[in-house]
Amino acid sequence: MEPLFGAGIWHFGQYVDRYATDGYGPPVTTLEAIDRAGQVGSLSVVDLTYPFNPVDLAVSDVSDALKRNNLRAIAITPEIYTRKFVKGAFTNPDAAVRREALSLISEGAEVARELGCDYVKLWPGQDGWDYPFQADYGQLWKYSLDGVRELAATFPDLKFAIEYKPREPRNRMVFSGVARTLLGIEEIGLPNVGILLDFGHSLYGGESPADAARLAISRGRLFAIDVNDNFRGWDDDMVVGSVHLTETFEFFWTLRDLGWDGVWQLDQFPFREDQVQAARDGIDVMRAIYRALDLVDRDALRAAQDAQDALAAQRIIRKALLSTLPE
Amino acid sequence: MEPLFGAGIWHFGQYVDRYATDGYGPPVTTLEAIDRAGQVGSLSVVDLTYPFNPVDLAVSDVSDALKRNNLRAIAITPEIYTRKFVKGAFTNPDAAVRREALSLISEGAEVARELGCDYVKLWPGQDGWDYPFQADYGQLWKYSLDGVRELAATFPDLKFAIEYKPREPRNRMVFSGVARTLLGIEEIGLPNVGILLDFGHSLYGGESPADAARLAISRGRLFAIDVNDNFRGWDDDMVVGSVHLTETFEFFWTLRDLGWDGVWQLDQFPFREDQVQAARDGIDVMRAIYRALDLVDRDALRAAQDAQDALAAQRIIRKALLSTLPE
Amino acid sequence: MEPLFGAGIWHFGQYVDRYATDGYGPPVTTLEAIDRAGQVGSLSVVDLTYPFNPVDLAVSDVSDALKRNNLRAIAITPEIYTRKFVKGAFTNPDAAVRREALSLISEGAEVARELGCDYVKLWPGQDGWDYPFQADYGQLWKYSLDGVRELAATFPDLKFAIEYKPREPRNRMVFSGVARTLLGIEEIGLPNVGILLDFGHSLYGGESPADAARLAISRGRLFAIDVNDNFRGWDDDMVVGSVHLTETFEFFWTLRDLGWDGVWQLDQFPFREDQVQAARDGIDVMRAIYRALDLVDRDALRAAQDAQDALAAQRIIRKALLSTLPE
Amino acid sequence: MEPLFGAGIWHFGQYVDRYATDGYGPPVTTLEAIDRAGQVGSLSVVDLTYPFNPVDLAVSDVSDALKRNNLRAIAITPEIYTRKFVKGAFTNPDAAVRREALSLISEGAEVARELGCDYVKLWPGQDGWDYPFQADYGQLWKYSLDGVRELAATFPDLKFAIEYKPREPRNRMVFSGVARTLLGIEEIGLPNVGILLDFGHSLYGGESPADAARLAISRGRLFAIDVNDNFRGWDDDMVVGSVHLTETFEFFWTLRDLGWDGVWQLDQFPFREDQVQAARDGIDVMRAIYRALDLVDRDALRAAQDAQDALAAQRIIRKALLSTLPE
Repeated sequence: MEPLFGAGIWHFGQYVDRYATDGYGPPVTTLEAIDRAGQVGSLSVVDLTYPFNPVDLAVSDVSDALKRNNLRAIAITPEIYTRKFVKGAFTNPDAAVRREALSLISEGAEVARELGCDYVKLWPGQDGWDYPFQADYGQLWKYSLDGVRELAATFPDLKFAIEYKPREPRNRMVFSGVARTLLGIEEIGLPNVGILLDFGHSLYGGESPADAARLAISRGRLFAIDVNDNFRGWDDDMVVGSVHLTETFEFFWTLRDLGWDGVWQLDQFPFREDQVQAARDGIDVMRAIYRALDLVDRDALRAAQDAQDALAAQRIIRKALLSTLPE
Repeated sequence: MEPLFGAGIWHFGQYVDRYATDGYGPPVTTLEAIDRAGQVGSLSVVDLTYPFNPVDLAVSDVSDALKRNNLRAIAITPEIYTRKFVKGAFTNPDAAVRREALSLISEGAEVARELGCDYVKLWPGQDGWDYPFQADYGQLWKYSLDGVRELAATFPDLKFAIEYKPREPRNRMVFSGVARTLLGIEEIGLPNVGILLDFGHSLYGGESPADAARLAISRGRLFAIDVNDNFRGWDDDMVVGSVHLTETFEFFWTLRDLGWDGVWQLDQFPFREDQVQAARDGIDVMRAIYRALDLVDRDALRAAQDAQDALAAQRIIRKALLSTLPE
Repeated sequence: MEPLFGAGIWHFGQYVDRYATDGYGPPVTTLEAIDRAGQVGSLSVVDLTYPFNPVDLAVSDVSDALKRNNLRAIAITPEIYTRKFVKGAFTNPDAAVRREALSLISEGAEVARELGCDYVKLWPGQDGWDYPFQADYGQLWKYSLDGVRELAATFPDLKFAIEYKPREPRNRMVFSGVARTLLGIEEIGLPNVGILLDFGHSLYGGESPADAARLAISRGRLFAIDVNDNFRGWDDDMVVGSVHLTETFEFFWTLRDLGWDGVWQLDQFPFREDQVQAARDGIDVMRAIYRALDLVDRDALRAAQDAQDALAAQRIIRKALLSTLPE
Repeated sequence: MEPLFGAGIWHFGQYVDRYATDGYGPPVTTLEAIDRAGQVGSLSVVDLTYPFNPVDLAVSDVSDALKRNNLRAIAITPEIYTRKFVKGAFTNPDAAVRREALSLISEGAEVARELGCDYVKLWPGQDGWDYPFQADYGQLWKYSLDGVRELAATFPDLKFAIEYKPREPRNRMVFSGVARTLLGIEEIGLPNVGILLDFGHSLYGGESPADAARLAISRGRLFAIDVNDNFRGWDDDMVVGSVHLTETFEFFWTLRDLGWDGVWQLDQFPFREDQVQAARDGIDVMRAIYRALDLVDRDALRAAQDAQDALAAQRIIRKALLSTLPE
């Protein structure tokens, strides 16, 4: 049976960057974005940023919009990276701002409960440093773990998924890679903290995403995934499979192989493309991958991998993926 | 005599990115930004983005603000990278938008004339591509050269400086590096088209900035420079010398060595720092470099470079730069 | 009709690096390497490094070995990167060594004539710099152009193809990218100097290889190509298509589109794999690509590219390449 | 009191790469290399690769050579990356080769005991993968931990320091970064396994080396360090401080701040430079750094870091390092 497909709601929002400061399109409300997600047709779940837009939007209105689009909220992502938090959320040098961050996330957690989400996503993109000598790294680490621990202890019925990333918007992030985040999670010592593994973050961070997934799963901490693609130097958030088809395939292969059966979720930023079409295309690629998984000669691949025979393994994979291979 | 120092006016504006969509601080008008530039105290010139903010601001008001801050406008940078142009300015697939881009730049050129600027800066950040197979590269190249040629022919009394950059906001830019831009400029075949070399763009594009400067100067096309710093993977626009002190020093050494005597200009984005202080710090670093240039043993360096003796060359440089070297 | 396939003879030689200093396998003579190339079965041409191994091997013996393997020498690659030339061949600070480099290349050129090669390949991997301040970049540039010009003028009946590369073994190479190499070639001003474009060099140098090919072809300077793959950070010389299938496809698409009909040549280093099998696999991938080229809806792609519609273009391409796309 | 300075003995050996296969100089025996190390004048310790060259060299001869050069062996580095192990040492698909690797390391450990070394260095450069789908990552991880655990359990009186590295010679290494290696070490669960942190590996792996050191120290696992420099894209092993002076300074600052007082050790590959001079220059830079550490206004830096004030922190640092700063 096909996996469930999902998307971050920001996929359907307004994008802004430091050049097109007037946006790659007009502003989009939360309800409009949900309706766009509904137009995709194959999405089952969305990850919602919080606060909603507008901020006084009722949860029930969100809930209704989801229902009429046959969508469910899989997660709430509190926006701990806006102006108030540009010097850090968990790690802000100002204790009052750190408190505000926890407070905003807690609010988001309540909404997550109300919407019946699977997890609260923590994306501490402003938590890190920009310059050599700027920070006491031990202090940043402690602030980060303390903050997440407090949340996880306060909401033991909810799961918290940390989305790690090497950089952007900070030049360097505290939770920068899978291993470092696992170290932190194990230091926190609570069962309801895990990882959201973004394929693109892993890729441009120099990891092999399939291996990163394996590591997180081996410790019982892979709570969710996001997929997209990039040119391996930045978080380009391109359409799934547009550059790294083989490694995307390996990523999904590994998830299946290890019995991980969560949602296949999009985190794309189609800056100059049609958002609904971009989502459909990403899902089409995932469907092609899903079908190709069944065409892999599992035993032969196992044998090739036991022998670490790269050529044999790649031949098996090409045979499953490509349409025009010579016999 | 000390060089003139300058800055892009955006150094003193509001920064926005795709996460802090509400900005790293409140909006800033052109006049406010000019006043901030004036506070730095050591700036002589600024590069002004156009249209002004607000759009109906009179050139005479800008002129007055510059005067009262002891500043001069060295350049106008038309904003050909906002929403209207996200699919390209010179290379937009829509001929009408290409026309609009030329029209906006022409307006900016008139303002540049009025303000007595040295050049119009062209920064075609949206001109490029994001995906494999997206574009006919020959068409993009032709559009780019045709557009710049038309401008340069229309305003033969003005200089046009192309600021190249490997990427951002586009995943790949048409004018991506110094050699490619020179190829294009020579194909255009007009004397009033040259290069603005941004140290950071060169660095993270894999060039040696000093060598890039040499190449542009050798063809008579180095019209202006911007300096800043980064971690060599992205255009971080950090304070000058904060990471790559030696290569920054080499860059300025080469400029002096080849007799290039233009303005030393800042293009920093101190997202989370005080803008005026960041400019002062960047200038302090440039002043330290300027003084250290006089401490270089010129003949010894020449001899070391003729022998391509890296160790000797580096010893000479360290002696000029560092305060605590053992004898 | 299928293209001709070729390979650098080093594909079948002994690999060494700074760790496995005893080699990734035993030494291999030129004749043995030719025999291995012959075993591949689909190769028509090879690019031969010179001097041969052993150095006193007769050209006629090489010629015989080629014949019995149904191979032709497409090029001679003089080894201007061994111990004698580690401080540079064309740019060595010692004029006597520069002379030796020209002399070795000239010898190679004579052999190329004798073997009826299409071109002499120049790969100046040791020509560049390692440290900031090490070299006078203008001097390196002049040495490089003077050397190549002298060769091209001396052998007007032969073609010289410069293989550019961003780095390795030098930290920075003089001929680092396509545009820079074209600038140099045009400065040389002779018709028989061109480019060998290595897909992997272009890719990890931050170029879009298809665009680089377009640029070289537009100036009549694309003399030859090499293909392989890498992780975009180093010249990994992996099997063709193992990582960047789409961009490899775009590369070959562009060659066909522009009417370039040279040899499809392998430059792989299967360090830990069977060399003959790796070549066969690389050719299989190229054959799959060759066939898929015919499945591309040319008019639709043209329309998508005119509109710079990335999603449409990628859909067309996926349809040609993948076997399991949903309808 | 000044720190002790050390160097890897390979600094003084013959370098080879895949182009200069005849070496960047003639072969060097272990005793010759020790004598070169002795010529440096400021070195106190060396890290010796094992087997010695020639392989039958007596340990007593090595010991004598060290003594006459006033050197001590701080470590033994078993060569588990030569031809026999190109498909892996700990992770070789062939159990017999895995066994041979352990056996060679054990031999090296005995020699380490005999020479009174501080630790055995494990550098599993061939342990990893090159291609997507090549390996079962869980199996590689298990093999790696099992091998190291067995060694550490067998030699409880010795310390084993794993030198992590993102890649080279393998495209991807199992022990790729500080966090991942710490995860592995904690999973091994023995006190005598730790990390050798190579500054350059950390830098080009995307870490902030000072932060990586902090993390390793916080878990009691920083056994040793190596320093050098690079352009942040590859392990260039350049002379210390030649590119990243500020981050090198931050690295040593952090070590002092956290009370880590081990040897300051060189891992440079001066391919085209005089080896003894390169070592002296690296040490000179380290001495300049050592002296500058005392010039840092500690309280002011602490305050700046508590406020995460990058500008203030950088000003403090520049004041300690640079000779020509304006007042």
